[in-house]
Amino acid sequence: MKVAVLAPVAWRTPPRHYGPWEQVASNIAEGLIKLGIDVTLFATGDSITAGKLDAICEQGYEEDRTQDAKVLECLHISNLMEKAGEFDIIHNNFDFLPLTYSRLIKTPVITTIHGFSSERIIPVYKKYNSIGNYVSISNSDRSPELNYLATVYNGLDPKDFELNENPDDYLLYFGRIHPHKGTAEAIDIAKKSKRKLIIAGIVQDEGYFKNKIEPQLNDQITYIGSAGPEKRNILLGNASALLHPISFDEPFGMSVAEAMLCGTPVIAFNRGSMPELIKNGETGFLVNDIDTAVEAVKSLRDINRVDCYTWATTQFSCDKMVADYLNLYRKILRY
Amino acid sequence: MKVAVLAPVAWRTPPRHYGPWEQVASNIAEGLIKLGIDVTLFATGDSITAGKLDAICEQGYEEDRTQDAKVLECLHISNLMEKAGEFDIIHNNFDFLPLTYSRLIKTPVITTIHGFSSERIIPVYKKYNSIGNYVSISNSDRSPELNYLATVYNGLDPKDFELNENPDDYLLYFGRIHPHKGTAEAIDIAKKSKRKLIIAGIVQDEGYFKNKIEPQLNDQITYIGSAGPEKRNILLGNASALLHPISFDEPFGMSVAEAMLCGTPVIAFNRGSMPELIKNGETGFLVNDIDTAVEAVKSLRDINRVDCYTWATTQFSCDKMVADYLNLYRKILRY
Repeated sequence: MKVAVLAPVAWRTPPRHYGPWEQVASNIAEGLIKLGIDVTLFATGDSITAGKLDAICEQGYEEDRTQDAKVLECLHISNLMEKAGEFDIIHNNFDFLPLTYSRLIKTPVITTIHGFSSERIIPVYKKYNSIGNYVSISNSDRSPELNYLATVYNGLDPKDFELNENPDDYLLYFGRIHPHKGTAEAIDIAKKSKRKLIIAGIVQDEGYFKNKIEPQLNDQITYIGSAGPEKRNILLGNASALLHPISFDEPFGMSVAEAMLCGTPVIAFNRGSMPELIKNGETGFLVNDIDTAVEAVKSLRDINRVDCYTWATTQFSCDKMVADYLNLYRKILRY
Repeated sequence: MKVAVLAPVAWRTPPRHYGPWEQVASNIAEGLIKLGIDVTLFATGDSITAGKLDAICEQGYEEDRTQDAKVLECLHISNLMEKAGEFDIIHNNFDFLPLTYSRLIKTPVITTIHGFSSERIIPVYKKYNSIGNYVSISNSDRSPELNYLATVYNGLDPKDFELNENPDDYLLYFGRIHPHKGTAEAIDIAKKSKRKLIIAGIVQDEGYFKNKIEPQLNDQITYIGSAGPEKRNILLGNASALLHPISFDEPFGMSVAEAMLCGTPVIAFNRGSMPELIKNGETGFLVNDIDTAVEAVKSLRDINRVDCYTWATTQFSCDKMVADYLNLYRKILRY
């Protein structure tokens, strides 16, 4: 089976620091290659793969800002579409734009919808509903207007993470610094719990960081910038819990799965995909506000970190994700 | 011959007030229809054509700002591309994005490059150099990196304009309010010439308008907002001259051709397409700065307004443009 995996060209695949769609595209490509599948990764030229790489630009438009995103996107997508005949299936991890080329080629396309940036993009998905072969990344992230083939949870490589049964006593916030992700709420929870908090992640909302986060930093609440893959395992594994007090219906919480892969329980606001990711009372706590989150911090000793690790490795591993996708490819191709 | 004319979906085709690409696309479509050609206009749903109209949205994204431009663009382009087999030729008046679908269809595409918004879009045109059938709208607007089939000047309908041999004494600025177009320079020329100036056009640069234009408005220098097609003929025809002191290499000055179609000479800074549009000393003056523009104002009585009108109707009429394009279609299709 010859598979083309289409990644975005915002960041390198896999990303250096940030780039969740690129990370999943990489995990899919590398997982398929391990199973002996012939994979070509369409991504930026500086991307890394054990398979073939096809690129129209050296760096992503977020990493070399002199480039025009729209130009890169259409050159990247058309580069694959013009070679569609060389592949049995195209796995679109890009977004809606590739769909608009899909009726002009014969190769079937499977599309993982990594998230809806806005309701306004749904008409494109609706137009290609019958041929898009849509996959949701959680049951909660489904649009009622679309048909889905399946839900496939994002898979991570358990080798990148280690079970840590003896963590330090700090709480961790790990993600973009943005009101949606609840950085300020995590600080409130840590303060009311009288626990240390380490904040790690790229600043996505400068104003929010300057006004709501920076003034609260001190010995107890520290910001360490963005933590790349090498630091991530230690940072997550040493945390007594990950705080994830989101204020939006997050389609899939990558850091939630990552934390549990280190044995670290997660205290999350009960929204979006959280009830699918966290077994309440077993691998963390689903809470509704800051006060119940503070209560959950007190109950952390009730959680067995081995349970977190076992749950995450069976549900959110690369191997499981890749096996799920391979089954879907076979279903589409009637192999 | 079945022709698909692809207009942008920023504004209605033809535009209500502003929308130069939509205006030319409309003139091409309606001109072809008059010659008996079977034309389908791909444009917004509120567009007006004597031919067939195919639309994926009711209004343009500039007229209904609740819409997502990227979504509208790709739905619009793919709508045509998926029907490509129904047409002998596709005339792309959109920009670079449709080119990236053009290798996936069999119908030839001819592309009028209405302007380069940035150097960064040239790689797309370069990629499709061999099949894009590029047409420049002036010789000055050619990129040395691209192959061109021909230059075809934008054509206007002479019926929309009337020769006025007895104008008023005001000078006119007609165009977007933007530093590129030289609104402030036009004011300087009028003030130094001690002549009235009427300014008409949409405000594209709010800061520029607030800081450089608005404080100078008085009885002598007046701003009348945007002038739609119905006002245009009177406003242009009654002017003793159009001032066009541009600070960029304008690919084609629509208002320059429009003014001459009313018999009104043009005083323009000698850049971009201006020497192709204006016969210096016969239909206006090509000048290099404000002082020589003031001298030109004094020499306006040397210009015969009938010469302006005759020059413009032979060079920049719809009929001439449409005949030129039809010849190019035949050349591409080897009719």
